[in-house]
Amino acid sequence: MAKVKVGIVGGTGYTGVELLRLLANHPNAEVVAITSRSEAGMPVAEMFPNLRGFYDLAFSEPNPDVLKACDVVFFATPHGVAMSMTPDLVEAGVRVIDLAADFRINDLEVWEDWYGMSHGCPSIMDEVVYGLPEMFREKIKEARVIANPGCYPTAVQLGFQPLLKAGLVDIDHLIADAKSGISGAGRGAKVESLAAETSEGFKAYGINGHRHLPEIVQGLNAMVGGKVNLTFVPHLIPTIRGIEATLYGKLTKNVSQQELQELFENTYCEEPFVDVMPANSQPDTRLVKGSNMCRMAVYRPSGGDIVVVTSVIDNLVKGAAGQAVQNMNIMFDLEENAGLNHVALLP
Amino acid sequence: MAKVKVGIVGGTGYTGVELLRLLANHPNAEVVAITSRSEAGMPVAEMFPNLRGFYDLAFSEPNPDVLKACDVVFFATPHGVAMSMTPDLVEAGVRVIDLAADFRINDLEVWEDWYGMSHGCPSIMDEVVYGLPEMFREKIKEARVIANPGCYPTAVQLGFQPLLKAGLVDIDHLIADAKSGISGAGRGAKVESLAAETSEGFKAYGINGHRHLPEIVQGLNAMVGGKVNLTFVPHLIPTIRGIEATLYGKLTKNVSQQELQELFENTYCEEPFVDVMPANSQPDTRLVKGSNMCRMAVYRPSGGDIVVVTSVIDNLVKGAAGQAVQNMNIMFDLEENAGLNHVALLP
Amino acid sequence: MAKVKVGIVGGTGYTGVELLRLLANHPNAEVVAITSRSEAGMPVAEMFPNLRGFYDLAFSEPNPDVLKACDVVFFATPHGVAMSMTPDLVEAGVRVIDLAADFRINDLEVWEDWYGMSHGCPSIMDEVVYGLPEMFREKIKEARVIANPGCYPTAVQLGFQPLLKAGLVDIDHLIADAKSGISGAGRGAKVESLAAETSEGFKAYGINGHRHLPEIVQGLNAMVGGKVNLTFVPHLIPTIRGIEATLYGKLTKNVSQQELQELFENTYCEEPFVDVMPANSQPDTRLVKGSNMCRMAVYRPSGGDIVVVTSVIDNLVKGAAGQAVQNMNIMFDLEENAGLNHVALLP
Amino acid sequence: MAKVKVGIVGGTGYTGVELLRLLANHPNAEVVAITSRSEAGMPVAEMFPNLRGFYDLAFSEPNPDVLKACDVVFFATPHGVAMSMTPDLVEAGVRVIDLAADFRINDLEVWEDWYGMSHGCPSIMDEVVYGLPEMFREKIKEARVIANPGCYPTAVQLGFQPLLKAGLVDIDHLIADAKSGISGAGRGAKVESLAAETSEGFKAYGINGHRHLPEIVQGLNAMVGGKVNLTFVPHLIPTIRGIEATLYGKLTKNVSQQELQELFENTYCEEPFVDVMPANSQPDTRLVKGSNMCRMAVYRPSGGDIVVVTSVIDNLVKGAAGQAVQNMNIMFDLEENAGLNHVALLP
Repeated sequence: MAKVKVGIVGGTGYTGVELLRLLANHPNAEVVAITSRSEAGMPVAEMFPNLRGFYDLAFSEPNPDVLKACDVVFFATPHGVAMSMTPDLVEAGVRVIDLAADFRINDLEVWEDWYGMSHGCPSIMDEVVYGLPEMFREKIKEARVIANPGCYPTAVQLGFQPLLKAGLVDIDHLIADAKSGISGAGRGAKVESLAAETSEGFKAYGINGHRHLPEIVQGLNAMVGGKVNLTFVPHLIPTIRGIEATLYGKLTKNVSQQELQELFENTYCEEPFVDVMPANSQPDTRLVKGSNMCRMAVYRPSGGDIVVVTSVIDNLVKGAAGQAVQNMNIMFDLEENAGLNHVALLP
Repeated sequence: MAKVKVGIVGGTGYTGVELLRLLANHPNAEVVAITSRSEAGMPVAEMFPNLRGFYDLAFSEPNPDVLKACDVVFFATPHGVAMSMTPDLVEAGVRVIDLAADFRINDLEVWEDWYGMSHGCPSIMDEVVYGLPEMFREKIKEARVIANPGCYPTAVQLGFQPLLKAGLVDIDHLIADAKSGISGAGRGAKVESLAAETSEGFKAYGINGHRHLPEIVQGLNAMVGGKVNLTFVPHLIPTIRGIEATLYGKLTKNVSQQELQELFENTYCEEPFVDVMPANSQPDTRLVKGSNMCRMAVYRPSGGDIVVVTSVIDNLVKGAAGQAVQNMNIMFDLEENAGLNHVALLP
Repeated sequence: MAKVKVGIVGGTGYTGVELLRLLANHPNAEVVAITSRSEAGMPVAEMFPNLRGFYDLAFSEPNPDVLKACDVVFFATPHGVAMSMTPDLVEAGVRVIDLAADFRINDLEVWEDWYGMSHGCPSIMDEVVYGLPEMFREKIKEARVIANPGCYPTAVQLGFQPLLKAGLVDIDHLIADAKSGISGAGRGAKVESLAAETSEGFKAYGINGHRHLPEIVQGLNAMVGGKVNLTFVPHLIPTIRGIEATLYGKLTKNVSQQELQELFENTYCEEPFVDVMPANSQPDTRLVKGSNMCRMAVYRPSGGDIVVVTSVIDNLVKGAAGQAVQNMNIMFDLEENAGLNHVALLP
Repeated sequence: MAKVKVGIVGGTGYTGVELLRLLANHPNAEVVAITSRSEAGMPVAEMFPNLRGFYDLAFSEPNPDVLKACDVVFFATPHGVAMSMTPDLVEAGVRVIDLAADFRINDLEVWEDWYGMSHGCPSIMDEVVYGLPEMFREKIKEARVIANPGCYPTAVQLGFQPLLKAGLVDIDHLIADAKSGISGAGRGAKVESLAAETSEGFKAYGINGHRHLPEIVQGLNAMVGGKVNLTFVPHLIPTIRGIEATLYGKLTKNVSQQELQELFENTYCEEPFVDVMPANSQPDTRLVKGSNMCRMAVYRPSGGDIVVVTSVIDNLVKGAAGQAVQNMNIMFDLEENAGLNHVALLP
């Protein structure tokens, strides 16, 4: 079978190099073009020497004809780029997976409010599919445009989904206390991302509003067919990779620890990339480093009426590039775990 | 004025070396004895070479006569030691500050349940004072025995205190999502504390029960004059020092962000070691590294009915040795910040 | 083709879990047994949850019959175990790869001196092959017993090899200033390996004698057909993985930077796992994290008479488990990079 | 006694905030002005909240009159600023301590070559004193202009000094393999200083030329009264603070390990900030974190002809701000350790 021809727009950031890592050994896909205006001409393996020996490719100026010859184009760009190029690509029969936020929020007023720009292709939103396979696998198969979920949203939505679909918790007081490694802040040169500013520290940030809040709420709303209230507090962990989300909900029914365990296991037993760990396990971001797995556990501490879920992912894999490849695999009818069978790097 | 003569029992762990660091430059106190059965004869500056040039002292076998000649004895020992030696010391007129948990829980049934041993001196519990100056400063002045608070309990109680004393939150559904650096696990040789097991990782632990839970609940109960329900989830941060607690409460009255800010500022405006930061600040553990400060901020995200408090301390200073020295200063009528005026090490 | 049947003795340490990671996706090998006296009965995926979904295997008591039914047995044990079990296995036709030091030093007096025990099977030393493919690939093909090189020795020998074989440096004054991540100290519970003892620190150690010194010297001697003098100073880096070696030699001939570059490139141009980077590159341990590559660069600073080589590996991969798998691939006539095509995890 | 009135030019970088930390508790000095064009008006405690409670001061526009009213002005600025302002200040009777490199190199041709600009006040170089107290204490007392040494140069010069002054090593083949924490790269927003680019990595850099090379060579030349050849290879450690230098020299005389130990101890026995550790010690950067100490040890491995010295400092203290304060103390006839008696933060 011919390999899926992949184009990548952008690719000088961490999601870009992670896409290149994952696709380097993908059995059914090959990267045929990667674009960057600022780095055109630079071999990818010179910018990212971990790729030496895997790629001869160089960054190139974005060329519509080259991209239109691809089967799928990933956007690993700042917000605003994908929406300007997607309509032409879709018309040319290319499928699009956007790793930025351009297509994540259906309500464009909300989107414009949080992202501070007007949306470039409102009409395409009707056919956009939110690329969380554990919610929308069937739609993803046929989708032409995928909004690849954000990193926090992936960890939080997967953790809440069993509880919300089963109607077990008070949807007016959901709490997500989430933590992310520093690679989530990207490869941009910012003082607050310096090693000397982040190592040996830990803080909450964005308490009064983080762009992932409306994305998460949209997903949770879909699970309950209504409107949830969520308090979302992100924190910065002094690690490179990893997201941990500790989720709190007030139980509205009396379910035992064992019933909760069974609910979670039943929800995800067919999922290749969600691992419900045994009762009393401690999901740790180091258990998913470099892999596409989401691992989680559910607790009812002291038998009280608060249910706790902890959920971990690698923000660059299941939280970005890995999930994008998983979506590609589903769209092109490949094995869902093709190119994604990495064992997490431990220690 | 004669210096306060200090004895330290134990002292080969992290709270011990931190006591030595803080007391090395204390203007009104001097360490006259430090005991360790296992390290008797070893100079403290050989075991902890950061102390070279500051101490000629060596660890010695515990000698009751030497300790009874002190003005104050700090216990930096495993649980169970202080309770066996304290009655004799108190009788000899020595004041005792226990940095372990022997005297922290008033209800000894609860204590024995969580610590798995029977208590060695129940009768002394009547006069024990819980050494959180921001709650019990007046009692500390006269106390003969101080239970120095745990690290998580310090950060959590200080953060909740203004809300609970003002009666603003639902006390049946308090949530404390807390995070600690690895030094909180002590200097014992344990696989789970190895650098290769903890760096580049992040996880929750002790969700089904942590020894600091009953200690915190006891303190919160005292604030409300009733019984609270608290969900307490500790996490491990890959840093050496630092505790951050993100606290969630459901507001029972409609108070504005500004009113919350004023409440917190008024509560702590006289406190030398609690810093209420301005609205929208981000308390970070790096802002208190090596210092006795607790810094905090209060938020009402999106104007909803959940109030969020973030509170940071250095677990070895305000969460252990620094608070112990603060208690000593209060007990001996010294300047409360004597020996404790360190600027946090940043970066 | 039938898969190579692999047994692993030991396997509760970091080289053990790394072997399991690499072999989980090996196309031509499968782990059929893994032994541990202390953990017999424990599923490997329970001890190392990163393996959940990859292995159903549990640790078992060492059983000679099971091991003798393997094609190859890896020893990931403390020093002294492999030499007691290898003769029987070899007699049974099983090939042995020892990741410990039992077979690394040909001169058994030297070995016994450094390792403090008497050697258990001197007679087998005649046929042992030192498993550094870049020196001994042909012998490895036929070997029945492989001494898998130490981590420091791999980085240092590969870096010095081109210079020594070309006779370009003063062999009486070689210097290797080497640095290793903390996983090199193993998974044993030791105070000096705690996160709170190693993060935010950096030190030299073992200056007066490290067990890898005689191993390295033996290899360098072989390159020159004589006797070298080497000053070897190891240091501890506060990372989990990675070895960097900065090597210094005094040039005995006037060779230009460009000639040095060509010498290195020519030496290793056929090697799948040695990457000579372009002049002025900066080999970084993060460029090999999780991969079997050794990357290096050569410099002649200021045009003086000192040549500098920097060489980086992942100590658990090319410095241990990865090199062991590479040796297995060579021994069983598989593709040399089978199961070893990982792109280094960056960032 | 009136306090020394201190002005700081620059101060938004790491040496600036470190000066503020050290001077906050200095018994004989007070900061009366701190300037920053870009941050004028910003309270220092708002930019660096670890200073909350210690300073009411705000950054101000540089004002010559204010600075001329100071007793001493520290320059914590990029290279090039101090040389433009120093002549006026000196003429006004203000003493100047430059923490940048403007005055470090006596040979201005060399300086201009390495720093890429022409020098602004050549005439003042005649009276500049290089502020390494262990070499030039007497001159520092009377100096009007101090060139505060670089961080690497401090660690390397202090380590080599005893050997060079005693004429024990081959001065044509000195090697300094040095390592620095990331704060040495400053607080500028640069991709290569991001946490995601540096943590879990280790690399050499600047092998073909680092600006500290000519500064070190100048100092070593002064020690021998001749010309040395030095190979200097800096490396980046994934810590915030700390420099470790491992120094190698070829012995030209047969001196025993014990004689070397005595030489080092005798050289520095009167120095308040150099600690020669006992034989076989392991100087670790964590033993000097936050303190002005330089700790070192000397070895003669295997009794060979190579002598090894390891030397550690905190790059922001003894390698920058602490040494600057030490110089101020000497210049103003204060206790040399005034404000500098910090115990290193361990763990």
